[in-house]
Amino acid sequence: MSGVPVPADFAPPPTAPDLARWESADRDARPIRLERLRERMASEGVDAYFGLRRENIRYLTGFALAEGEEKAAGDSGRFLVTADEVVVLADSRYTIQAARQCPDARIAFAYRDLPSRWSELTTSIGARRIAVEAAVMPHALWARLETAAPEIELVPIEGWVETLRATKEPAELERVAAACAVADRALAALLPTIQLGRTEREVALELEWTMRTGGAEALAFDVAVLAGPEAALPHGSPGDRPIVEGAVLLFDFGAQVAGYRSDMTRTLFVGEPTPRDLEIHDLVRRAQAAAIAALERSIASGDRPSGWAIDAIARAVIEEADLGERFGHGLGHGIGLATHELPSLSRTASEDAGLPSPTVFSVEPGVYLVGETGVRIEDLVLFDPDGGRVERLTLFPREPLVVGLG
Amino acid sequence: MSGVPVPADFAPPPTAPDLARWESADRDARPIRLERLRERMASEGVDAYFGLRRENIRYLTGFALAEGEEKAAGDSGRFLVTADEVVVLADSRYTIQAARQCPDARIAFAYRDLPSRWSELTTSIGARRIAVEAAVMPHALWARLETAAPEIELVPIEGWVETLRATKEPAELERVAAACAVADRALAALLPTIQLGRTEREVALELEWTMRTGGAEALAFDVAVLAGPEAALPHGSPGDRPIVEGAVLLFDFGAQVAGYRSDMTRTLFVGEPTPRDLEIHDLVRRAQAAAIAALERSIASGDRPSGWAIDAIARAVIEEADLGERFGHGLGHGIGLATHELPSLSRTASEDAGLPSPTVFSVEPGVYLVGETGVRIEDLVLFDPDGGRVERLTLFPREPLVVGLG
Repeated sequence: MSGVPVPADFAPPPTAPDLARWESADRDARPIRLERLRERMASEGVDAYFGLRRENIRYLTGFALAEGEEKAAGDSGRFLVTADEVVVLADSRYTIQAARQCPDARIAFAYRDLPSRWSELTTSIGARRIAVEAAVMPHALWARLETAAPEIELVPIEGWVETLRATKEPAELERVAAACAVADRALAALLPTIQLGRTEREVALELEWTMRTGGAEALAFDVAVLAGPEAALPHGSPGDRPIVEGAVLLFDFGAQVAGYRSDMTRTLFVGEPTPRDLEIHDLVRRAQAAAIAALERSIASGDRPSGWAIDAIARAVIEEADLGERFGHGLGHGIGLATHELPSLSRTASEDAGLPSPTVFSVEPGVYLVGETGVRIEDLVLFDPDGGRVERLTLFPREPLVVGLG
Repeated sequence: MSGVPVPADFAPPPTAPDLARWESADRDARPIRLERLRERMASEGVDAYFGLRRENIRYLTGFALAEGEEKAAGDSGRFLVTADEVVVLADSRYTIQAARQCPDARIAFAYRDLPSRWSELTTSIGARRIAVEAAVMPHALWARLETAAPEIELVPIEGWVETLRATKEPAELERVAAACAVADRALAALLPTIQLGRTEREVALELEWTMRTGGAEALAFDVAVLAGPEAALPHGSPGDRPIVEGAVLLFDFGAQVAGYRSDMTRTLFVGEPTPRDLEIHDLVRRAQAAAIAALERSIASGDRPSGWAIDAIARAVIEEADLGERFGHGLGHGIGLATHELPSLSRTASEDAGLPSPTVFSVEPGVYLVGETGVRIEDLVLFDPDGGRVERLTLFPREPLVVGLG
């Protein structure tokens, strides 16, 4: 059993100068990001790119929408990139924000009426063949744009910007690390308040509050707190179930700092762990350690591993204990402006494609015994083979930790 | 100036029996909702309906996704309705939830691989011509389904279920009213804590916390708190600006109770209001009162007004003061499972179509003087001409209220 962590073990929340530095770094990076996209556009033979995904909007234009805000924003934030221009759409609610956040873009007015403006807009940018984010563009809008300007060819594409986003800049990695520290500190601060009888929901709300008053501008996703057998649901949400002694208590949560996110899972013990729970916890911890050791070895050997290969290494540890069937999800996912993004570490990832560099992803093996118990341990890991380093960004201890008896 | 409201002026948060009653009411209502959709399907000549919108999923199947969760849920929750069956898609993360929340539906497995299952699925329901929610369906998925089963005709439709949802059942209205009371109480509880020097962001977070520990299962949308000239941005978000004396303080916020939402705006005064601010506040209040009086008169006369006509009545009051240009948005919007839904009360609403009955919508005139000040007053109003009643559900006083000098 490890010593009990306290908030001061982790980095303090970001300061105003940090925030200013990151904003400035984004402004400097945007032309480089756009240049990479333009190379792809040229090689694919399109003369414009129409983007709609919230994260891509922020990455390429600087225009920030809160999670889910794009549903109410209409066309605002949607953008066109050509070889020499960026055009950001905005209605009257958003023109001030667009002018402030996108100083290098042209702001074009649109209010849920893009089809009626489409012909003029595409003429103004001189585009004929436009790549469109087809996984995000609603079919009804696609059909209306085709009708509005039949001479414009819409080319359905997916993943161009998402692939660029998988490789992280230094100021992006700093923000993911800062978001990890906010989450680490919050869990440390929460520990003394975990008491028998409090419900999952109460504890989840308190953890959220601790993050949001401790440096998080938002959550990365809704906090999950799952007690006992509920921890066997990899996607459960907190309910009115009370915390009981002799069972696990699983926390899956993350913070958002200056647009970038963290994601961590800890499975704690309420009272003395049962030998079975402890055994599974140890197995999951060893599976995670094996994956990270493999990443470290790959730096030494110079071979770039695939997300498939790293998943397989962690999975083998769990399969060796005959529990492979109880680890039903992938080992990890990239993270940044979105909680789940490229690269993927899983059985469905490519066996051949090496991981990007530098990048950051979760390593989160789990074992779920339905009706009984569940254990998952999740850390974010910075993987930078070109820079010769592998580094955990989640620093909260992984050793078994007993809570709730204070 | 009115007396200062206190939390006990408003209804207490919902109880466990309330929640159970609403759940049961939804279960009873679902066959009736489905019947209405099936009538539309028959009249339009389609033999199935494919739904993807979060709110429509909950309304017709009972499957509940949190706001934004649909982005991570993949196909889970998406559903097909035929003349005699409801099929809900779910991957392994969601099968337990689907079985619990959709006891009358068939659960079909799908994990981001709907195209490869589409042919078998459509054969199993015997459908050839399927209405699809085209404003929500991504174009890439549309194209893949067309390729996967070219013999199935996808018919792009919009608004069928949204139109049904505009007419509210008693248990839906109860929940909107309960969500209004949670918000009313929270603002009353917040009043004594409003102090000069606190920032918009701090006050917004406290108001959120008060709602979420006072009966709200979630927010209806991010809380807006805007001080002084910022109140002139109808879509501003709280920043690090401190509350200063002699200026307005605008609150726009809402709660969610058992899936249903509220939305209210109050513009308070920090210290003694300036004569100009007070004059605008009075104008906005009179515009709102005129709209509600017109709704009341329509009950007496038996003429069903349109959303366009009610907007015009409030707008005329502001135009008379030569400030029509400073009221740039619509008068109101329906509310329920979504914060913004049908009916619309605005200049773009139909002049002829009468409002549904019973329904609930916001009445929220505003006047915005950029760089100077802004005032909006927003209440939810239950409009039930068939039942002979018009009723404000937002009960927080609308009179000018001075805060921040305690």
